[in-house]
Amino acid sequence: MAGTNLLGGMAIMKGRDAEHVHVLRMKPGEDFIICDGEGTDYKCRLVRADKEEVEAEVIEVVPCPAEPSVKVTVLCGLPKGDKTDYIIQKCVEAGAAEILFFHAKRCVARPDLPEKKLERWQRISEEAAKQSGRGIIPQVGWCGEFADALNEAAHRELGLFMYETGEREKLDEVLGAHKDVKSVAIVTGPEGGFEEFEAQLARICGLHVCSMGERILRCETAPVVALTATMFATGNLG
Amino acid sequence: MAGTNLLGGMAIMKGRDAEHVHVLRMKPGEDFIICDGEGTDYKCRLVRADKEEVEAEVIEVVPCPAEPSVKVTVLCGLPKGDKTDYIIQKCVEAGAAEILFFHAKRCVARPDLPEKKLERWQRISEEAAKQSGRGIIPQVGWCGEFADALNEAAHRELGLFMYETGEREKLDEVLGAHKDVKSVAIVTGPEGGFEEFEAQLARICGLHVCSMGERILRCETAPVVALTATMFATGNLG
Repeated sequence: MAGTNLLGGMAIMKGRDAEHVHVLRMKPGEDFIICDGEGTDYKCRLVRADKEEVEAEVIEVVPCPAEPSVKVTVLCGLPKGDKTDYIIQKCVEAGAAEILFFHAKRCVARPDLPEKKLERWQRISEEAAKQSGRGIIPQVGWCGEFADALNEAAHRELGLFMYETGEREKLDEVLGAHKDVKSVAIVTGPEGGFEEFEAQLARICGLHVCSMGERILRCETAPVVALTATMFATGNLG
Repeated sequence: MAGTNLLGGMAIMKGRDAEHVHVLRMKPGEDFIICDGEGTDYKCRLVRADKEEVEAEVIEVVPCPAEPSVKVTVLCGLPKGDKTDYIIQKCVEAGAAEILFFHAKRCVARPDLPEKKLERWQRISEEAAKQSGRGIIPQVGWCGEFADALNEAAHRELGLFMYETGEREKLDEVLGAHKDVKSVAIVTGPEGGFEEFEAQLARICGLHVCSMGERILRCETAPVVALTATMFATGNLG
């Protein structure tokens, strides 16, 4: 979509997008879909195409059907090594709107992130979004300290904090009571989980401190499972 | 549990299990749990322990709380490379009872499996089961041809066949109508998905041919997502 303009019912594509249409050897009159990367699909009919420029008539503008009705922000305590990459890829496939990492008490990974790492994370998101047919490229970023993550989560309609011990609500019951929710934050911990005071702070901030059953999930599995549960509960998995 | 006998309210542990209790420096009167690897927990009180033998009183016999109420068999078209390992690890964490691979039309991996690979798969399952606190070690195996997989799936109370195109039921609706199901088979395809005739055969065999929404999931992600949805729908994720 970079290099594409949608003006008065006509789409003009230049650069790489135009080249792509040209390579596909599409003929005038053929239909195709332009995705704006922000959740909207433009159904277009080709008018003319050469290597430099493509002109198409916009027939219909619709929300991308692959985009879930709920906007989920996944917030993860920074794990070690390339577990971040796995979390990003799987959460993008499973429908996350954005993925943010933060520093928690038990994080062993260094929190000072070079620009390069952020670029790589975003590239993983872009690749996963294209592969799975997403209508947006989910933003991946660094959220800062634990308190910053809580602040982010508290600004969503529903905030879910995954915790392994003590007094908790059942994730399935919390989600069952919020079937029509439009924005959700899912907070998961690093390898060692959260400290009790972190769970307590989350509770004070109004987040739902939740259990996902008696099985202990790895730090890279928990966000994917919680996200899938959220998609299921809100009718976005069928 | 190897080397452990439970006789008339007393548990006698020998070998590595006894050594383990000895290393933990447990004192007579202390309580601990013995898991039989088949879904049952034995709450025990230590009577005496040395390096060779441990004697304990069985106080209570209870179903392992980490075991879900639904027995899910995950059947996957054999993928390339080490994606099998990922599927095994994540499905064990997410609560699968067994994981079987089979050969489908679009499989590119060689279906002739050396004994060594099966042993490695089982070891991955065992490690994941211990890490996540499962009460059983899920069986991992080779199921054979596509027809064998269908046959396995058709013998479960509910058979779910994940398919990416054409006429399908919505996974969330099918699961929503089977909240009390006790045995489920989840069938997912290899990298290229299933052929139309394979989906047709599944339909004829009484499986539910299901969609998981418009997002296209990788072959190693689909089984984990479908399994998590099943756990959620049957009340095993809280």
